[in-house]
Amino acid sequence: MDQEHVVELANSVAPDLGSQIEFLLEIDKLKNVIRRSKITDGSRLENTAEHSWHLAMLAIVLAPHAASDVDICRALKLLLVHDLVEIDAGDTFAYDVAGHEDKVEREQQAADRIFAILPPQQRDEIRSLWDEYEARETPTAVFAYACDRLEPMLLNASNGGGAWKEHGVKESQVRAYNGPIEDASDPLWALADRIINSGVAIGALS
Amino acid sequence: MDQEHVVELANSVAPDLGSQIEFLLEIDKLKNVIRRSKITDGSRLENTAEHSWHLAMLAIVLAPHAASDVDICRALKLLLVHDLVEIDAGDTFAYDVAGHEDKVEREQQAADRIFAILPPQQRDEIRSLWDEYEARETPTAVFAYACDRLEPMLLNASNGGGAWKEHGVKESQVRAYNGPIEDASDPLWALADRIINSGVAIGALS
Repeated sequence: MDQEHVVELANSVAPDLGSQIEFLLEIDKLKNVIRRSKITDGSRLENTAEHSWHLAMLAIVLAPHAASDVDICRALKLLLVHDLVEIDAGDTFAYDVAGHEDKVEREQQAADRIFAILPPQQRDEIRSLWDEYEARETPTAVFAYACDRLEPMLLNASNGGGAWKEHGVKESQVRAYNGPIEDASDPLWALADRIINSGVAIGALS
Repeated sequence: MDQEHVVELANSVAPDLGSQIEFLLEIDKLKNVIRRSKITDGSRLENTAEHSWHLAMLAIVLAPHAASDVDICRALKLLLVHDLVEIDAGDTFAYDVAGHEDKVEREQQAADRIFAILPPQQRDEIRSLWDEYEARETPTAVFAYACDRLEPMLLNASNGGGAWKEHGVKESQVRAYNGPIEDASDPLWALADRIINSGVAIGALS
């Protein structure tokens, strides 16, 4: 019994269910996409599936700090799906300039392939979530985006700023990259600012 | 800079934010709770944080198959928080009889400790999510619970029923344990039933 056989069984129940199960098994690959931040205990690098879960928890807990009204239900959906494209496109490290040059194109192609596994209505629904997140125009997407910026900073600061040190990241880069947190929340930006200052003070950021 | 220092920085912005960041860093430990199912490619065991993400995706995609009206927003929250207690209580394997004897007590104690890190209002909100999931009385909780049953079955079936074989699991056990899927959805139960029959046919289930 393999993945294909499971999809066939689902297909024999209902064709839509076959497509849905194929999608749900395909996205299991997100558990094998490895990020550059270590988990809090520093024992290993984080993967994108568990990162997505953590972001959703940040959204639930930190929503009261959002500057504008956030649709928390939609924020959760945005965060759960926003990194699915990394299955094909890989995780692009925040401070990898070359990697960011073709990131948009790689991720658009990934979205086209992966979301198309779903029945058309759900394909469009998930695509609209991903597009909203990427456009960062709604208050909900702005807040979700800030969660995605804040989480690796929290992990990294919890283990001595290891990822910053390892990759020789500069304070100015971190300020520029994490600037979107300020658009979403004054207190969350105040926290990010203090973490960055501490990173400089201990020499983790140059 | 360590976890405690990050919490102090958050505390210096606002006391509630300090408690919230402490909670969000504490629950990072869920990434180190290892389950008995392997991910689809069979390369390693799944952890509970990425499992929780996957369940939330199942809920989004499979909600149209629910027998009763599901509040999808609430289903996502139930699934994102339902396993947090495993940080203290550990994952109890589905077919571990001894482990299930004191599971409820261990998990209640874990819920008391972990949720109490949050400011009181959020502590109560997360607790009510966890209680609703555990009680399995609302249609939303019944559906969320079915997702939690179906996901390991999908993973396990995708890699030849490895976990069943390894632990000598019987068909009758799988049918009893996964029965709650039938309460949530006829087509999802039809799929589970066909997977179980295939598991028997290939000798993965005795």
